[in-house]
Amino acid sequence: MSPDKKNKSVLEVDDELLEDITELIHDRSDAALKNILADLYDFDISVIIDNLKDDDDACYLFSLLNDDTASEVILEISDDRREYFTEKLSGEKISDIVSEMYSDDATDFLSDLEEDKQEEVLGNLDKLDKDDSEEVRELLSYDENTAGGIMAKEYVAVNENMTIAEAVKEVQLRAEDVDQFYNLWVVDDSNVLKGIMSLKRLIVSMQTPDALTKEIMNEDVIYVEAGTDQEEIAKIFRSYDLVSMPVVDSNQRVIGKITIDDVMDVMEEEYSEDVARMAGTDAEELEKKSPFEIAKLRLPWLMITLLIEMFAVFVVSSHDEMLEKIILLAAFMPIISAISGNTGLQSAAIVVRGLDTGNMMLKRWWEPLNRQIRTTLIIGTVIGLAVGLMGYLLSDANKVRFGLSVAVSMFISINIAGIIGTISPMISKRLGFDPALTSGPFETAFQDVIGITVFLTVSTYLLSHV
Amino acid sequence: MSPDKKNKSVLEVDDELLEDITELIHDRSDAALKNILADLYDFDISVIIDNLKDDDDACYLFSLLNDDTASEVILEISDDRREYFTEKLSGEKISDIVSEMYSDDATDFLSDLEEDKQEEVLGNLDKLDKDDSEEVRELLSYDENTAGGIMAKEYVAVNENMTIAEAVKEVQLRAEDVDQFYNLWVVDDSNVLKGIMSLKRLIVSMQTPDALTKEIMNEDVIYVEAGTDQEEIAKIFRSYDLVSMPVVDSNQRVIGKITIDDVMDVMEEEYSEDVARMAGTDAEELEKKSPFEIAKLRLPWLMITLLIEMFAVFVVSSHDEMLEKIILLAAFMPIISAISGNTGLQSAAIVVRGLDTGNMMLKRWWEPLNRQIRTTLIIGTVIGLAVGLMGYLLSDANKVRFGLSVAVSMFISINIAGIIGTISPMISKRLGFDPALTSGPFETAFQDVIGITVFLTVSTYLLSHV
Repeated sequence: MSPDKKNKSVLEVDDELLEDITELIHDRSDAALKNILADLYDFDISVIIDNLKDDDDACYLFSLLNDDTASEVILEISDDRREYFTEKLSGEKISDIVSEMYSDDATDFLSDLEEDKQEEVLGNLDKLDKDDSEEVRELLSYDENTAGGIMAKEYVAVNENMTIAEAVKEVQLRAEDVDQFYNLWVVDDSNVLKGIMSLKRLIVSMQTPDALTKEIMNEDVIYVEAGTDQEEIAKIFRSYDLVSMPVVDSNQRVIGKITIDDVMDVMEEEYSEDVARMAGTDAEELEKKSPFEIAKLRLPWLMITLLIEMFAVFVVSSHDEMLEKIILLAAFMPIISAISGNTGLQSAAIVVRGLDTGNMMLKRWWEPLNRQIRTTLIIGTVIGLAVGLMGYLLSDANKVRFGLSVAVSMFISINIAGIIGTISPMISKRLGFDPALTSGPFETAFQDVIGITVFLTVSTYLLSHV
Repeated sequence: MSPDKKNKSVLEVDDELLEDITELIHDRSDAALKNILADLYDFDISVIIDNLKDDDDACYLFSLLNDDTASEVILEISDDRREYFTEKLSGEKISDIVSEMYSDDATDFLSDLEEDKQEEVLGNLDKLDKDDSEEVRELLSYDENTAGGIMAKEYVAVNENMTIAEAVKEVQLRAEDVDQFYNLWVVDDSNVLKGIMSLKRLIVSMQTPDALTKEIMNEDVIYVEAGTDQEEIAKIFRSYDLVSMPVVDSNQRVIGKITIDDVMDVMEEEYSEDVARMAGTDAEELEKKSPFEIAKLRLPWLMITLLIEMFAVFVVSSHDEMLEKIILLAAFMPIISAISGNTGLQSAAIVVRGLDTGNMMLKRWWEPLNRQIRTTLIIGTVIGLAVGLMGYLLSDANKVRFGLSVAVSMFISINIAGIIGTISPMISKRLGFDPALTSGPFETAFQDVIGITVFLTVSTYLLSHV
């Protein structure tokens, strides 16, 4: 992919390279290993470290990295390896690594450390660079899911009365300290945000080096306050196609910068959260290690599923006479409930995504509902006929009536499932809850109960006059 | 949010504003409407247009926009409104709007049009700007899910032998034509990619204006060929924290540029695809309008679910004697199958996300498996006891044996579900399939059948000696 980096894996782990490296680690061939590492991108080193089978081999390889590379690699590797390394490494070594990080990365990294290790590292940082450590302490004070929690302190602000030539000098002076640098913030004497200028605009404006930045800047700057929720920030970046955005305090003074890479992390996080909720657990599970903690996240969902399914117990019990007579009814229950649950989930998932991506509007709720109902009418007919035919073929007596019971109740419960699956995420969003909550196990359990109730009621009615 | 834009909604639709605008549309108060529109960001206009109840009102408001704004807004609005507008608008008006777009946006937009409308617009574009229309025709020839399909033709490349001062001139000359502009590609005389230079680096290097770009550029440029799949591109951007990347042909000559906003669209798309698959449908459904087309996407999933559930019919039928004796067994079937299905889904969803985010390594497969098994042992014990107690309380005779049957089979099927839920996405990934496929309805149906089989087998054994 790159013409100059040898042995570059780019996202694919090369088994041979991995074996070679493992061998070199066992032989303690530091020089050879360092040679290999020098040719790799930081990310590719992290992939190799993650794919080594043995924790200690991985830690040994990591210890060969210089502090600068280590500071990037440790942010990229998997959570459990990072935890293992930070336990093994001395507080001093960790401090050296952290001091190479940008303030937002240092903050993320430190917030995952145990309390006493965090204090030790911060103490060391105080000695290494007082300014840096104070920035990190400030960032640690914000809620990690807000603008303050994801922003960096490295940004370049220029005074609105500076000339373009002076602004260029300022950029040249600060450039090395600032990562992901695409825009300048323009501020007044009190550091209050006045405008924004892209580097592209700055370069173009160098043709009039004496113009003031306030004459050139874009006054329509989109910004957030430190307390803004990260999910809203991601939406703002997506909606206005931003790559970086200033963060201000309550007096509109610039205090930090959020960049697109932070936002992509937020998107990944929110996505994991949605998927986890659809499956009846929590994305926290991806971070937690103890089975007890994971069980604690999952059990509430299962318990609620259990409660909802309790209704099925009573519905089935109350139809015991009919079931004793025709045990094939019991045999068809799993089909009816699985198919209705699945249909409801299909509608729900599509509506959740439609609302999320802005392709469906709550204010025009009847449009998706209309479309879903017309869809489930078709699906209900097809599946109803298929299941009805199965019922006809498998039953011993009353073949027609039995087949009809199965077909009709399948048709009805598929359509109910479609309607509920469509409107419940909408209601959920309208009430301010996460719509993904309604396309999870509760949805399925609820459709289960409805499917079985419809099935047993319809078939009791149709078959009881035999 | 912005100090200067009045009436700015930023992601929230203001009901009052919406009513005012609707009224002004009905009064045909063009001047007042244009006044309101002038104060809004493009994205906010798209939100208003999407939230107007009536298609024709929305179309009327859209027609008041100038071509430049319209070219941004039409890309942001929902698919159905866009389709409605393009049907209503003349080919000429559409051509004017498209001619304001960047090449990648124009291509996306045109590829959604009907064949004959697309030809008409391209014909008009030929007259407006031959170069533009040729670029679009080229882009339309690539598969829309590849680098070629998402790249733009607007990029700035400088020759490796240009001086920094000359490169600055080139940027000043080209800046207005190029959106999302953060990096220069450095090429040789044959347009072969040699390196990359960020605008930040360019500004810093202006201190040595006579240096050649090849002395300053970064040779380690990450690039893709036109045929590279968009999912891989998104991974590359994420892994190497890129904001833009050159696209080359098979001879390494630069042919286009991919920017981070394209990549975020890809991420959203892939995410929709995953969620849709987990629910047993396809993300295409978000685009398709006809219920017949949607039903065609969904029915295969439901049919396979049906086939898997057929096994349940036979399992239940073959236990008819025991079920006739103790009909409460049938009443507990829905609980057993719902809880096992849900447990399997929990494990599967977490493993799918873990593999996706790089927090779980296929080469270290035993680690998640070990963690999941220890978790389901706990969950199986807790839920098994709860369900067992319910069974004990609800049964009339053989209370202990019945409770025990329910508890033991719940425990066993939860643990089987956990193991299958964990390894099936791994096997799926190992074989090169999308792991999300294995955490959908098949998973749940499969766990259903296993749960019911275990339950009826265990309880027949425990209860048959009464």
